[in-house]
Amino acid sequence: MAKEAKTLDDLFHATLKDMYFAEKKILATLPKMAKAAQSEELRAAFEKHEAETEEQIGRLEQVFAAIDKKPQAKTCDAIVGITEEGAEIMKEYKGSPALDAGLLAAAQAVEHYEISRYGTLIAWAEELGLEDAVSLLEDTLEEEKATDEALTEIAKSAINQQAEAA
Amino acid sequence: MAKEAKTLDDLFHATLKDMYFAEKKILATLPKMAKAAQSEELRAAFEKHEAETEEQIGRLEQVFAAIDKKPQAKTCDAIVGITEEGAEIMKEYKGSPALDAGLLAAAQAVEHYEISRYGTLIAWAEELGLEDAVSLLEDTLEEEKATDEALTEIAKSAINQQAEAA
Repeated sequence: MAKEAKTLDDLFHATLKDMYFAEKKILATLPKMAKAAQSEELRAAFEKHEAETEEQIGRLEQVFAAIDKKPQAKTCDAIVGITEEGAEIMKEYKGSPALDAGLLAAAQAVEHYEISRYGTLIAWAEELGLEDAVSLLEDTLEEEKATDEALTEIAKSAINQQAEAA
Repeated sequence: MAKEAKTLDDLFHATLKDMYFAEKKILATLPKMAKAAQSEELRAAFEKHEAETEEQIGRLEQVFAAIDKKPQAKTCDAIVGITEEGAEIMKEYKGSPALDAGLLAAAQAVEHYEISRYGTLIAWAEELGLEDAVSLLEDTLEEEKATDEALTEIAKSAINQQAEAA
């Protein structure tokens, strides 16, 4: 019976817990990536996104409040795997000219995961008539897209050329 | 010494192995998702993408050939985590009206991961002057984007409403 009762509300709530875990994991990872980054530009981008991530966690807490739930994190296997790949890059490419290119790619994989998830949450919130949640989640989605674009710009500039020239 | 010697060529090759693993994992997962899907439209989308994924694996093999390497898969933690989430949805939402919404979201997370990775591989292949690889990877990237858009269209249509109405 419990299984049959699961609806879009349950899925929305479960995915919210998933993203709450993911954002906290990302918040813990960004300072490590900033520290590892070779270029000042990339380090600054990670630090900027760290501040945004803190705000995004706050917005998720507001979305939990909008559905009368307490903020709760549930292990998100996807972000664990994605950040694990970033950790491998930091280890394997330490001191290598390709390190920043690898960090950028790892960060963009994180952003794309988030873009996908927030897009899904917004669609569900619209279906469920959760207007406040839609607005909060859209603010975060715009930030994630802007971060991804900023990373693309950095990637297009000096870093890959550095790696190739080495 | 070995660590210092790592360049963008190494990163490109490593990420190619990562995607070769990912595509094979996705190829193994898609029939399960097609079987689980409740709507005919979603099932058909998964089956179409299964055929495309086979071609994408073939293109990756051509990219390996373009850099004089043998096709080789390396465990990609990210796709393991992302597909694990899809497997959880199949299990937890079996028989539930929100199953298809969950499957769609899981598939879109996979597509976004691939879009991110192929975007990165194309940028690196351009830097490295691997014109044939750029062309092959762009064909795949376009398919992934089209798949993501098709999934968004399906998501916007009946499925979420079904879940909500239940």
